[in-house]
Amino acid sequence: MAAAALTAREIVLVDCPDDVGLIHRITGVLGGHRLNIECNHEFVDTAARHFFFRAEVTPAAGADTPSAARLRDDLAGMLPAAARVRVTRAERRPIVVCATREPHCLGELLLLDAVGDLPGRIVAVVSNHDTLRGLVERFGLPFHHVPHRDGAGHDLARADHEALLAAAIDRHAPEYVVLARYMRVLSEAFVARYPDRIVNIHHSFLPAFAGASPYRQAHDRGVKVIGATAHVVTATLDDGPIIAQDVIHVDHAFTPERMAQAGRDVEKLVLAKAVRLLLEERVFLHGRRTVVFE
Amino acid sequence: MAAAALTAREIVLVDCPDDVGLIHRITGVLGGHRLNIECNHEFVDTAARHFFFRAEVTPAAGADTPSAARLRDDLAGMLPAAARVRVTRAERRPIVVCATREPHCLGELLLLDAVGDLPGRIVAVVSNHDTLRGLVERFGLPFHHVPHRDGAGHDLARADHEALLAAAIDRHAPEYVVLARYMRVLSEAFVARYPDRIVNIHHSFLPAFAGASPYRQAHDRGVKVIGATAHVVTATLDDGPIIAQDVIHVDHAFTPERMAQAGRDVEKLVLAKAVRLLLEERVFLHGRRTVVFE
Amino acid sequence: MAAAALTAREIVLVDCPDDVGLIHRITGVLGGHRLNIECNHEFVDTAARHFFFRAEVTPAAGADTPSAARLRDDLAGMLPAAARVRVTRAERRPIVVCATREPHCLGELLLLDAVGDLPGRIVAVVSNHDTLRGLVERFGLPFHHVPHRDGAGHDLARADHEALLAAAIDRHAPEYVVLARYMRVLSEAFVARYPDRIVNIHHSFLPAFAGASPYRQAHDRGVKVIGATAHVVTATLDDGPIIAQDVIHVDHAFTPERMAQAGRDVEKLVLAKAVRLLLEERVFLHGRRTVVFE
Amino acid sequence: MAAAALTAREIVLVDCPDDVGLIHRITGVLGGHRLNIECNHEFVDTAARHFFFRAEVTPAAGADTPSAARLRDDLAGMLPAAARVRVTRAERRPIVVCATREPHCLGELLLLDAVGDLPGRIVAVVSNHDTLRGLVERFGLPFHHVPHRDGAGHDLARADHEALLAAAIDRHAPEYVVLARYMRVLSEAFVARYPDRIVNIHHSFLPAFAGASPYRQAHDRGVKVIGATAHVVTATLDDGPIIAQDVIHVDHAFTPERMAQAGRDVEKLVLAKAVRLLLEERVFLHGRRTVVFE
Repeated sequence: MAAAALTAREIVLVDCPDDVGLIHRITGVLGGHRLNIECNHEFVDTAARHFFFRAEVTPAAGADTPSAARLRDDLAGMLPAAARVRVTRAERRPIVVCATREPHCLGELLLLDAVGDLPGRIVAVVSNHDTLRGLVERFGLPFHHVPHRDGAGHDLARADHEALLAAAIDRHAPEYVVLARYMRVLSEAFVARYPDRIVNIHHSFLPAFAGASPYRQAHDRGVKVIGATAHVVTATLDDGPIIAQDVIHVDHAFTPERMAQAGRDVEKLVLAKAVRLLLEERVFLHGRRTVVFE
Repeated sequence: MAAAALTAREIVLVDCPDDVGLIHRITGVLGGHRLNIECNHEFVDTAARHFFFRAEVTPAAGADTPSAARLRDDLAGMLPAAARVRVTRAERRPIVVCATREPHCLGELLLLDAVGDLPGRIVAVVSNHDTLRGLVERFGLPFHHVPHRDGAGHDLARADHEALLAAAIDRHAPEYVVLARYMRVLSEAFVARYPDRIVNIHHSFLPAFAGASPYRQAHDRGVKVIGATAHVVTATLDDGPIIAQDVIHVDHAFTPERMAQAGRDVEKLVLAKAVRLLLEERVFLHGRRTVVFE
Repeated sequence: MAAAALTAREIVLVDCPDDVGLIHRITGVLGGHRLNIECNHEFVDTAARHFFFRAEVTPAAGADTPSAARLRDDLAGMLPAAARVRVTRAERRPIVVCATREPHCLGELLLLDAVGDLPGRIVAVVSNHDTLRGLVERFGLPFHHVPHRDGAGHDLARADHEALLAAAIDRHAPEYVVLARYMRVLSEAFVARYPDRIVNIHHSFLPAFAGASPYRQAHDRGVKVIGATAHVVTATLDDGPIIAQDVIHVDHAFTPERMAQAGRDVEKLVLAKAVRLLLEERVFLHGRRTVVFE
Repeated sequence: MAAAALTAREIVLVDCPDDVGLIHRITGVLGGHRLNIECNHEFVDTAARHFFFRAEVTPAAGADTPSAARLRDDLAGMLPAAARVRVTRAERRPIVVCATREPHCLGELLLLDAVGDLPGRIVAVVSNHDTLRGLVERFGLPFHHVPHRDGAGHDLARADHEALLAAAIDRHAPEYVVLARYMRVLSEAFVARYPDRIVNIHHSFLPAFAGASPYRQAHDRGVKVIGATAHVVTATLDDGPIIAQDVIHVDHAFTPERMAQAGRDVEKLVLAKAVRLLLEERVFLHGRRTVVFE
């Protein structure tokens, strides 16, 4: 297959064990390909001795443009064997959004997409309920209802439901799967189909509340802040690397219902922030942590 | 003993099971005593069916001023039997601060007091270490070192140490005891000496981290916000009613040390806020919740 | 005309020059009508010697319910002559949104309405451009294009354009008119048609920037926060009483375009907050100030 | 004079017109000197076509260490002629604080210094009043009273007062001069003595208020946020490049006095943040903007 020529802007992502002269080597390769660095970020996690680098590059005027594969190989050749190198086009990447019945996070993403404030594009919405069809179809997007029960109202086996879900997702070939209040627990096998490519939002509280009705618990405990956390989904539920967090202030006058509304307000903002960061390829994962180049 | 006449500004605090016409009854009593309401707050917790009221009152021009005890009795006479009624002078109340070795929260309180931005006054500092003596004495305040070890370096029995601690506190007759990073667990018996009158600060994280080195854990987990919670101390450790909470944003570039510094920054602000609210008698406790009239 | 009987929840709003015993008088009238106070707020602006009161009331079980007019009259009879008294049903009030070409504020309101997080309902959108028709019609709402130019491309006289605008608004009989980035200056006469009933959003900066391209100016000045202000529209442009304000943090890496995006993010949040407060009748105007009972 | 050998950690600061391969050149020189890059930041202002770079470097194990001057010269030799290059030790730099009568900002800095949370050290405090002597001397620091009036109560000529002020400052040879609510306007000549080395704090409002009693004006205008701005002092009053800004939320219940207290709270935080950033040499100035590598 013919290598794709570099055009427009490419994003170069490198992470590897720290070593002497890494930036010098990387910038040497980029310069050798006559690529201009439009912006770049670099970070060394000194505790973990690990190096992270992100650059946006464009070909110099009149330069012959190398293929992405060639550039990646040349970078890898100069870096430690354990290095992960990606070269990827800066473009509006496709995402599939999974939701259940709550519209606030999904709606925020639909709206940002519709008004041009999402650096990507929603290509479909998948849900285990039919509730949100109307909202999605208003935006002219495909909505796939993948019920987790059969026609007789019996729960499908999780593997069977997830196979249907994956099929609905995969026909749109998204780069990221966004769980916008998707309320089914996903199996390890499902998560492994989209490694480091699923993002989730959940409410967060100080202190933490387990179990049902978290906003009622938060109310009964009299908390003064309500938070939300967006994280990459790993096999461990609600415990993947954190991309974004924020809180909103509440007080004693908030009923459980108003606390839940405040929670919806902050959830949608935090999820939207995380999705924007992912779509611009600004998030590195390393163990349980993220490095986020804003 | 002769009843103290009302002068200057008094704070009237009422909480009781909700009932019809409570505000009308209270304001009737206040009016009957020819007291002007300078400001007031009222809240009904509809779930708990409980009523909270706070007013600042001054005598009308030329009015005979009733005693605080008389006013309290007259209010109680009009309210449900379960009502709690307090009438207390608006003045700069005395507090004792307990600390261990960390100076940031203590220092913030000393400074606010010194510059006139604390609506109360620190009358002494008590510590189980001698580390902070210099800081306290700079501000011309008594510092009591109450070590938790005897001369031979053996830990005192907790009851014995707490008896010494209480003696050091009680000779200054404070209205509130502020734990400004005091690092010893307090017994139920000690807490019961100062019911609803001890405030504590502790760091808070999303998610929560138990055990030692919380800032290292927070770093290793890659959190994006660091929080602090000020709460009333009850028999249950770190779990009393919350007065104030806030967070500060951090990112991957924060080392555990810088995270701890960010934590110190937010801890001192949240504790100072809680102490100000307590000193102005703006905090009601009700079960595990607070009602805070800011 | 037959007086409407009180059903469900009514909102009672009073403001008047401060006087002794106002709360006692008001609660007396409410009690006399056998109304339960579900929640109430009260504030005295001591500098202006002005009193503000808001309560939500419901009839006691089995009570005969007075008409709103009767209740208003009875309240007014007990209050200073200058008192303003309103008794109004707690319900989802109708609003008309005016916009020009930017979709972010309009879209946020449409979405909140669609998902049930707006305590009111959008009954129409009016614009001097046709750009936003598609977005509005997705939500099944009427969109009125009221161009400020005639068919030949000549600007209409302002009075003529505003007459058409008012006609489009008035056929929907809204309680509030929301300017969601409506970019035409409104005449004093137009504003006077909807006294204290128009809310506007504009960006705000520290320091302030006059003139065109404010985000470019903010970028060139290197500001670290971008703000937004929602205010009631008065005859003085951008200078009416403030309902809500907030800011978002930016840094040197924000291009003017990303600053503008951050501005859009904060504008839509602040406008939505202000509209929610207005729809719940939580905002009093007094001179150049607001009293907002959150 | 013998060149100082590099020991411990050095900070390398470069800014110059943007060019191809700058990072590669700089990292080449650092590598040639066998310096490890512990952390670095880089930013290109694409609008201004200007490049900014900051690194913290340490000698590799066993390496001969070059002098700072030699390193600077080698870097300059590889960079555009207009490049500004600084090589400076990472250490606790001396600052002099100037104040007038308000203690809140000064006190915060004294306290951070005393508890080890300031990455620098206050070497003296200078004031045109004697009010703050007690506070400063509590911390064991020299306090210089430089009155702006003579013994007869007549104002000194500004040049004469500033000469005395500069003498008091200069005997402590500070790297930065911090105006912690110093209330005298400084002449262009005075500012030119400490180019880009004076930082100031002032309150900020949305909208802006000129003239006296800004907190009263903010109250009368009913603002909902109170801000503070820390900036480098240039010849143009209150208009130098911004280092840090933040706001605090207020509402209608804040009297002008409580607004001023909220203002003090945010002023001290923003000034402390700016001073920390300067002391760690994280701030570049470029025209009216700053680049701040946090």
